[in-house]
Amino acid sequence: MSKTIVIFGFHAIQAQLDSVPEGFVKVLTLDNRNDKRIGEINAQLAQLGIRVEKSNKQHLDKLTHNQTHQGIAAEILLPTLPNQDELITYVAKLDHAGLILILDSIQDPRNLGACLRSANAAGVDCVVINKDGSAPINALVHKTSAGALNQLKIFQVTNLARTIKALQKENVWVVGLDGSTKTSIYQIDLTTPTALIMGAEGKGLRKLTKQSCDQLALIPMQGNVESLNVSVATGVSLFEASRQRSI
Amino acid sequence: MSKTIVIFGFHAIQAQLDSVPEGFVKVLTLDNRNDKRIGEINAQLAQLGIRVEKSNKQHLDKLTHNQTHQGIAAEILLPTLPNQDELITYVAKLDHAGLILILDSIQDPRNLGACLRSANAAGVDCVVINKDGSAPINALVHKTSAGALNQLKIFQVTNLARTIKALQKENVWVVGLDGSTKTSIYQIDLTTPTALIMGAEGKGLRKLTKQSCDQLALIPMQGNVESLNVSVATGVSLFEASRQRSI
Repeated sequence: MSKTIVIFGFHAIQAQLDSVPEGFVKVLTLDNRNDKRIGEINAQLAQLGIRVEKSNKQHLDKLTHNQTHQGIAAEILLPTLPNQDELITYVAKLDHAGLILILDSIQDPRNLGACLRSANAAGVDCVVINKDGSAPINALVHKTSAGALNQLKIFQVTNLARTIKALQKENVWVVGLDGSTKTSIYQIDLTTPTALIMGAEGKGLRKLTKQSCDQLALIPMQGNVESLNVSVATGVSLFEASRQRSI
Repeated sequence: MSKTIVIFGFHAIQAQLDSVPEGFVKVLTLDNRNDKRIGEINAQLAQLGIRVEKSNKQHLDKLTHNQTHQGIAAEILLPTLPNQDELITYVAKLDHAGLILILDSIQDPRNLGACLRSANAAGVDCVVINKDGSAPINALVHKTSAGALNQLKIFQVTNLARTIKALQKENVWVVGLDGSTKTSIYQIDLTTPTALIMGAEGKGLRKLTKQSCDQLALIPMQGNVESLNVSVATGVSLFEASRQRSI
């Protein structure tokens, strides 16, 4: 049976409606809320035959762990993510130089969601996450991804080093972001089929991931902070690829 | 009297020690924690004559609102931020093409902190925030800035439009990030004295701020998400300036 999560707030419900309406199990709305906004959402839900139940504030507060739910929440199915074989089939069929984001063991659901949001905005073809050691895809990932979770092709793999090798066989150039190198990301040609790998918060790439890369690159840093937030580093790297590809 | 905030965790305490040790009012440590790490911090605090008190888990939990404090917290003074006059004096004295980040009414302390972290890493000369309408500088800003709050020159102004005019008189080119333009940030010369302005989450630049800019620019977006997180957009924009300046 598929896992379900609770999402909440108009933005999240609308994003789900626009992308994966078949994923709704049921929607709960506040019994005394009768404004235009809820009316519009209710009309869309009714048209698609999605079950809507009235609920009270106490129940919605509990269900959403007291987060700002705006009087609407929903239980949705989390799709089972495709695996390495499906990734390679997908990449082999791309008719342009693919841009892939690989997230190696991102720990914080907020960061994972923010990385997905950046990836979607930068126009990646797909995202790869490792199954064990990454934050689980939950409601917080859903929320911080601002809808990107539903829009992106996300593959989940069990052995990242093996996946990297399989991508390399498909002529994908694998670049790991790592502070230990002297090569700036601005010096690398990111216009050919490329996978960019981001490591975990604080820890960076795992040893085996790092060894598997074709090349390491860094974002040249100034100032005194030790590192960028991983979602910012992801944005800076992916938009550099996007910039190079737009010239 | 200066305002104080509570910071916690080894990283935050160490960053404060390294940058503004005179800002400590007092430090609280867990009464039963006696390991090497706390020993090292205690030695540094003692050397600087900073007051350290023993506390218990219950008290530290309450003080830090149940966040991960690692058995150490501190009350620190928040410095009064310099104003527009001091900003202009500072900018006039720069011996290189300055890079300034202006944050127009960022609402979420986490985002404000993350913007400061990105700004520090990208090597800005200073940051300008508006006094009314921005998130207050609090413990959460401190924590998410990863120490950058203490390292950066931050100016706080009451009237952003007036500040922009004053910067323009100092030959600073003021670029507002705004999705309504067709000009990509990659098309703009960011190597001359430049101020980049980022607007609030969801709302973007305020009308008067937008009208005051010399030029508007956007980060070319793909995918389906409506916007980037403001700290990611800040990182992408500032690192584009940094890239152009490194060529």
